[in-house]
Amino acid sequence: MAITPYTGGRPVPAHVVAIVSGGLDSTTLAYWLASRGTRLTLLSIDYGQRHSKELAFAREAAGALGADHHAANLRLTGWLRDGSALTSPDADVPDGHYTDESMRATVVPNRNALMLDLAVATAITTGAQAVAYGAHLGDHAVYPDCREEFVRAYEHMAGSANAGFLTENFAVLAPFILMTKADIAALAVELGVPIARTWSCYRGGDVHCGTCGTCTERREAFTLAGLPDPTTYASW
Amino acid sequence: MAITPYTGGRPVPAHVVAIVSGGLDSTTLAYWLASRGTRLTLLSIDYGQRHSKELAFAREAAGALGADHHAANLRLTGWLRDGSALTSPDADVPDGHYTDESMRATVVPNRNALMLDLAVATAITTGAQAVAYGAHLGDHAVYPDCREEFVRAYEHMAGSANAGFLTENFAVLAPFILMTKADIAALAVELGVPIARTWSCYRGGDVHCGTCGTCTERREAFTLAGLPDPTTYASW
Repeated sequence: MAITPYTGGRPVPAHVVAIVSGGLDSTTLAYWLASRGTRLTLLSIDYGQRHSKELAFAREAAGALGADHHAANLRLTGWLRDGSALTSPDADVPDGHYTDESMRATVVPNRNALMLDLAVATAITTGAQAVAYGAHLGDHAVYPDCREEFVRAYEHMAGSANAGFLTENFAVLAPFILMTKADIAALAVELGVPIARTWSCYRGGDVHCGTCGTCTERREAFTLAGLPDPTTYASW
Repeated sequence: MAITPYTGGRPVPAHVVAIVSGGLDSTTLAYWLASRGTRLTLLSIDYGQRHSKELAFAREAAGALGADHHAANLRLTGWLRDGSALTSPDADVPDGHYTDESMRATVVPNRNALMLDLAVATAITTGAQAVAYGAHLGDHAVYPDCREEFVRAYEHMAGSANAGFLTENFAVLAPFILMTKADIAALAVELGVPIARTWSCYRGGDVHCGTCGTCTERREAFTLAGLPDPTTYASW
């Protein structure tokens, strides 16, 4: 039986702001929301990540889905960048499987709260009833801001911060929070997501490197799902 | 009896990241925290406000207090700016007293959550045990993100988002939340804050205009406190 995205028993609202990086998970999220008939506004965050070419893939997905697309500038400077291999030009991107320690090196401090804040601001200006992001079960162990407890706490905070500016039943959706990346890969195939036109690699070369943490996870997801991976990798 | 800042019965932590715009309230907050012996990191947010000259005053306050100072770039583009007279070059800054309606015109969507989330990121990279901001009783009626309920919801969310990255008793401080602006003016005088070296005016001219909403409130605060206002105003 296929694992299906989780809505917490609530219907998907009529207009959703989805945070879409252009990676496999968030692009599949956008396609899934579109398949439910939701009006979509896609939001990409340019936080100076080295793999910023993914933003072009997000724009492409918005075009394919007929969705509005906005890109917000959140380039963190100096003191906020130093700890993160995602944005610091001096840091090494770790190879192979994520361990807790190497994964922490890729954490931009407080990233999901910041990205959701910009999505909530977008929901206020566009009148959307929800924001959505692509957190999944594989993020759970290392990233506390990918857990259900955080999603509920964030939803409560956002409603409290913006009472009178947001609809009363404003929701924060993390439909993949109980799904593995293999489940997402299977859903992507089922929905007809143009998988080769999504970008995961943290190294940001011409093609996926095939060896960094996200490439390793992406390849493994298709293997575990028993599905062909249409991605071109520089090495295996 | 003097009204004193509120700490919710908790001691002020050893190292606090304070959001300081360079205005009267937040500069007084920094001086009050410094008077408690707290190590301070000041954070200013450049969100493209027209009165960005206040950032120079924030830098000056940091220098006077021997505090670290960081300025984060959060220039919101297009769709996030249109509703706000603070950042939109086309919008009129309303004159005179804030009514609910004119005050809403100066709201940057979801602003305090965004600013606090940048402060929390700064707390993570600097090891601070708390963040603080200058919300006061006068903000209460119009801005839901200046209310105690929001502060508690935000504190819970931030702890949940960053479990393992923040100290366990991480706190969000809004010490002026039960004080009026007149109380803050009195505290500023008591603490020896260089009041003329703080900036409130939303119009951002050479001197305070004296007629916009914040100038009106600033002048009135000193009048109500029965204290001389050392600020130079273009008109009364």
